[in-house]
Amino acid sequence: MSSEFGKALKIQIFGASHGKAIGVVADGLPAGERIDEDELYRFLCRRRPGSSPLTTARNEADRPVFLSGLENGVTTGSPLCAVIENSDRRSGDYALFKDKPRPSHADYTALLRYGSEVDMRGGGHFSGRLTAPLAVIGGISKQILEKRGISIGAHLKTVGAAEDEDFPLYPDRSLFDAIAAKSIACISDSAAEAMAREIENARLELDSVGGVIECAAVGVPAGLGSPMFDGVENRLAAAVFGIPAVKGIEFGSGFAAAKSRGSDNNDPFIIDGGRIITEKNDAGGILGGITTAMPLVFRAAFKPTPSIAKTQKTVDLSRMENCEITIPGRHDPCIAIRAVPVIEAVTAAVILDMMLEEKKYGTV
Amino acid sequence: MSSEFGKALKIQIFGASHGKAIGVVADGLPAGERIDEDELYRFLCRRRPGSSPLTTARNEADRPVFLSGLENGVTTGSPLCAVIENSDRRSGDYALFKDKPRPSHADYTALLRYGSEVDMRGGGHFSGRLTAPLAVIGGISKQILEKRGISIGAHLKTVGAAEDEDFPLYPDRSLFDAIAAKSIACISDSAAEAMAREIENARLELDSVGGVIECAAVGVPAGLGSPMFDGVENRLAAAVFGIPAVKGIEFGSGFAAAKSRGSDNNDPFIIDGGRIITEKNDAGGILGGITTAMPLVFRAAFKPTPSIAKTQKTVDLSRMENCEITIPGRHDPCIAIRAVPVIEAVTAAVILDMMLEEKKYGTV
Amino acid sequence: MSSEFGKALKIQIFGASHGKAIGVVADGLPAGERIDEDELYRFLCRRRPGSSPLTTARNEADRPVFLSGLENGVTTGSPLCAVIENSDRRSGDYALFKDKPRPSHADYTALLRYGSEVDMRGGGHFSGRLTAPLAVIGGISKQILEKRGISIGAHLKTVGAAEDEDFPLYPDRSLFDAIAAKSIACISDSAAEAMAREIENARLELDSVGGVIECAAVGVPAGLGSPMFDGVENRLAAAVFGIPAVKGIEFGSGFAAAKSRGSDNNDPFIIDGGRIITEKNDAGGILGGITTAMPLVFRAAFKPTPSIAKTQKTVDLSRMENCEITIPGRHDPCIAIRAVPVIEAVTAAVILDMMLEEKKYGTV
Amino acid sequence: MSSEFGKALKIQIFGASHGKAIGVVADGLPAGERIDEDELYRFLCRRRPGSSPLTTARNEADRPVFLSGLENGVTTGSPLCAVIENSDRRSGDYALFKDKPRPSHADYTALLRYGSEVDMRGGGHFSGRLTAPLAVIGGISKQILEKRGISIGAHLKTVGAAEDEDFPLYPDRSLFDAIAAKSIACISDSAAEAMAREIENARLELDSVGGVIECAAVGVPAGLGSPMFDGVENRLAAAVFGIPAVKGIEFGSGFAAAKSRGSDNNDPFIIDGGRIITEKNDAGGILGGITTAMPLVFRAAFKPTPSIAKTQKTVDLSRMENCEITIPGRHDPCIAIRAVPVIEAVTAAVILDMMLEEKKYGTV
Repeated sequence: MSSEFGKALKIQIFGASHGKAIGVVADGLPAGERIDEDELYRFLCRRRPGSSPLTTARNEADRPVFLSGLENGVTTGSPLCAVIENSDRRSGDYALFKDKPRPSHADYTALLRYGSEVDMRGGGHFSGRLTAPLAVIGGISKQILEKRGISIGAHLKTVGAAEDEDFPLYPDRSLFDAIAAKSIACISDSAAEAMAREIENARLELDSVGGVIECAAVGVPAGLGSPMFDGVENRLAAAVFGIPAVKGIEFGSGFAAAKSRGSDNNDPFIIDGGRIITEKNDAGGILGGITTAMPLVFRAAFKPTPSIAKTQKTVDLSRMENCEITIPGRHDPCIAIRAVPVIEAVTAAVILDMMLEEKKYGTV
Repeated sequence: MSSEFGKALKIQIFGASHGKAIGVVADGLPAGERIDEDELYRFLCRRRPGSSPLTTARNEADRPVFLSGLENGVTTGSPLCAVIENSDRRSGDYALFKDKPRPSHADYTALLRYGSEVDMRGGGHFSGRLTAPLAVIGGISKQILEKRGISIGAHLKTVGAAEDEDFPLYPDRSLFDAIAAKSIACISDSAAEAMAREIENARLELDSVGGVIECAAVGVPAGLGSPMFDGVENRLAAAVFGIPAVKGIEFGSGFAAAKSRGSDNNDPFIIDGGRIITEKNDAGGILGGITTAMPLVFRAAFKPTPSIAKTQKTVDLSRMENCEITIPGRHDPCIAIRAVPVIEAVTAAVILDMMLEEKKYGTV
Repeated sequence: MSSEFGKALKIQIFGASHGKAIGVVADGLPAGERIDEDELYRFLCRRRPGSSPLTTARNEADRPVFLSGLENGVTTGSPLCAVIENSDRRSGDYALFKDKPRPSHADYTALLRYGSEVDMRGGGHFSGRLTAPLAVIGGISKQILEKRGISIGAHLKTVGAAEDEDFPLYPDRSLFDAIAAKSIACISDSAAEAMAREIENARLELDSVGGVIECAAVGVPAGLGSPMFDGVENRLAAAVFGIPAVKGIEFGSGFAAAKSRGSDNNDPFIIDGGRIITEKNDAGGILGGITTAMPLVFRAAFKPTPSIAKTQKTVDLSRMENCEITIPGRHDPCIAIRAVPVIEAVTAAVILDMMLEEKKYGTV
Repeated sequence: MSSEFGKALKIQIFGASHGKAIGVVADGLPAGERIDEDELYRFLCRRRPGSSPLTTARNEADRPVFLSGLENGVTTGSPLCAVIENSDRRSGDYALFKDKPRPSHADYTALLRYGSEVDMRGGGHFSGRLTAPLAVIGGISKQILEKRGISIGAHLKTVGAAEDEDFPLYPDRSLFDAIAAKSIACISDSAAEAMAREIENARLELDSVGGVIECAAVGVPAGLGSPMFDGVENRLAAAVFGIPAVKGIEFGSGFAAAKSRGSDNNDPFIIDGGRIITEKNDAGGILGGITTAMPLVFRAAFKPTPSIAKTQKTVDLSRMENCEITIPGRHDPCIAIRAVPVIEAVTAAVILDMMLEEKKYGTV
């Protein structure tokens, strides 16, 4: 397995959903950065299960313990290790799937890849629970970036058929804070209500529903990224697909650009108060893989939770015959809802990594 | 800059559109593989400019010379270097853009990133021309994979409003060959005609148009990829965003999954002639980042060519004032049309890299 | 900082000598390997401080806790995290060195590199204590290799003027076990006694003494490694210099080869029982960076412990004037003595990493 | 194979001794650096075969052609590709070794590793000839460093029993230039004469002889490098073992430190004209993997050329029986003599790479 990303800031995730603990080691954080642990915990709570009737009932403290790299709230420069205990592990629920892989889940491919020795209870190392340590390092990165005037926020753009409005051309920290304070991360409250209904309906029908998260980073310096394989899009995409259930990513106008004309999609440069900006931002703040200083904007598509309560067709591997499966236990009817801070976290970690790596070019 | 990707097969692209030559070094190819250089050249011709009235008039032989790694048509195991000369370089065309960056082009970000010392004529190292050496190593990878029963093909899914049909559940090599033989890579001939009209209309209106390419890889062994950051989606996305003008990527049902229910999007496992398959393939052949042995399917969104003949707004950097620009010279009204083999090439290189890397797990 | 090495098996060390804990994350271990934790602990005890009057008085349990990757004594395939608590941390001892850097210690360079924010008590992340988690992953690697017929052992070749005999042409596991059972890791008991005297004399004179460790790996398959920068020598050297106090490494006849003639240094190939071997092994089992299947042999030079009780000259950074320093506290009069299992550990980890990486070439 | 090193400056070597060409791609050079191509060529000539009766008779121009990355003598920031043609390739000489591997050469291990398909004539990708492109990128790095006040020089410390004096505590550019101007790179002319006799005697006896090269880098900023696995020693060692025939490396007092006491080996800090220096430099300018700003000093041991004219024992692989071999053709009686500029080149490339990577820490 390779559960690492980053170059100047190497982030290694470890643990499995039903082991003793999960955690993260981050090698390359700058020394001397003060981290507000309460703010970090509030950030982590945004992805916590059990915080809303719309998410899974699994309840955990998920408070990270820092074994190294952070002393008295200040980064030491040596590799940081944060650990989160798995306090609530019920393994019985999952025995079933060893023989009957859940459709569109990783049970089957994990078995192919690692063999039956590997304990896949709860999704093992494939579990969405691994996004908790990702949120820890992302939350830390976010604080470090904020001190440098870079803010990152995300909202649910769609859940099923319900749709939130787009970010404005220049979203700001106060908008991000307002969204983060809501139980469903939307700009528009009526969109949040429509999404809540979509999710509740899916749950009542023993089903689940997908969603799209839109993320923006404002204040990112211009000139970050490199052409070809080390651009901001390459790096962000590679990391975002590390979040379970992501099946697509698009930057700026994305797939809509493919249906457009150049004269519509091109963003004219203009002078604005002595600075060069673009009149609109269909590029999502990135040209040739490099930031323009316009807000960096992307959207990630989350598939509906594959674990649904409805009975489904699958195969019995021990008998090699078709069968049915009814998945008991806890599962979110909509993964996307809890993934909003995770998308922010991954974005913060990638941007911080790229800024640390490229400080040589004067961007930081 | 970082123009390298791959782990077991490291691929390094070099050169700029108006320098002496462009090329690729690939370190990690297996030794003893026979490569059909004529077949490779036919593959390269599919992305060649000048092969159709719908593409740019720039005409080059683009025949690669192998300086190392391939002797008498057989790979030697040592790093392969292929070079393509830039025979047709007219630099005058581009002098203009030094002061007046083309909207939605990399002129401006390259200047921010590398300073004015860097010669960006023709897009420099950002140029679409750098996809030629990418196609060389991809074409070689494709031949190596084909000998192992793995076929890769792509078609234009959309150009502007024109739309081709989807790949069938099980596309095969003969379909891929039939598509490759056409001047516009479509399954349906009427779709190809509609696309040709979209492109011609854009060209006549001094404009350009975007498109979506759908790619499939069949025969990829199950169990390829790793969870979190080293899955097939992470690796393919990171490489595909290295192709200029790509603004989005989605696997399987992708963004459509986000609007669906789990009961619709989940792919039931079934036994078929003693093998485990899925009834449909909304996962695009990937679960938890790992291949299922179903066809691997993804789509990439290309923005319209930013260089259009229409007059556009931009800024004059030397005077720091708003101005207009009319871009002379050669440019494709639709990049996507020539990018079809490039998408195949990148896909082949990534799959070969991952197979070489993971041979330890018995997948190859 | 970059406290990571390995490609197929990525090993990340974290922690500092006076923080809460130190540990290691290893990503890429094969799944399903049974690890004998008692044997591992016995291995770890060989580098434990406090086990002999000749080593530092600092006493710790140093028993690792596995947070992930090892369940019921079997590797799970997901990243392994092992943590060792710092139970005995007296920080007062080190306050002094903030202003007065210890000669030939990392105090001064760490300050230059990380600034005064970083807590360097006890050497911080530079401490020899970080070799404990290295020994954990190395001990695990050693067990995995032993099941495949690969044994690794090391002995003290010299301490000051005292010298042990060389390894025989074919050392074996029983020799390695016999050496490991001794309090001073020598082949010859009289050499061990001479070394003990060297160390005791140094200690009595408030001084320290250096040493050379010789390591051998037998049973390593032929054909491991790659030419130029990915050979066994490159990889081992890069990892071995990660052990504090190492100042030199040589393979086979090493520096002695530089004084020899080709006709003396060349190892003639001969047929022996149907196998190809070399008559002698001045190459140390490596030609062109690639293993020959002869025992892999190298030596590492350890400088004397820089922390000595004798008063030394240094500078007072706050006053920028010359001064003297007398270093209180605990320190080993000879680092090399405890480094023997660490050298074995690093060797095991590097060989396992390279075997996992190159399984594709049929070497494993 | 993996013929790449470097992080911020990725250096990829390609080619084989009897292929069409050899070369290097370097990705990450800063843009806008003026390179004096004549000075570069004079540097390359120092390793050129045929320049002295003491080296091999093989005669080549070895003048690099820059395909990209250098225009009008200025680096462009995009990946640099330099190619050197193989003008003088006589392949007949080497047919013999396919069945009868030369003792202590890579013929045998290359066969094990890559199979008989790989063309190993002249050592293939293992050949010392691959140090020519290494010298190209190293020579470029050297010029870039020199403009920043960093000078790198090397001399033959020993050849067989002949020994040159050590570098003074502070060697400087004028000393390096004086050494470079000599046909045998020594400080002392009588040492050079003694070495010439050693080499000539070896040649007359159809034999070869080893040597040690000492290298110093002065002006390297303090604070370069990271603890554990990313220190200057780790990175230099990993690269230096990429030069064929290197069997050992030591920094500062190296193996001699292992025989010394701490009170002798420790370098006292002192104030000198307001700067902190050490009174002597047994650390070789590196503490804890990080530079101190004292001269960086290391020595590399080269084994005697394995190809000697004397008849040697080997095996006939096709008959699996013992036999003898007499190696015809051209070979240096002492590799070390030509390796002096190669050691400088590798050192320059590694230091430049680390400076580019760590600019973020204010060291450059």
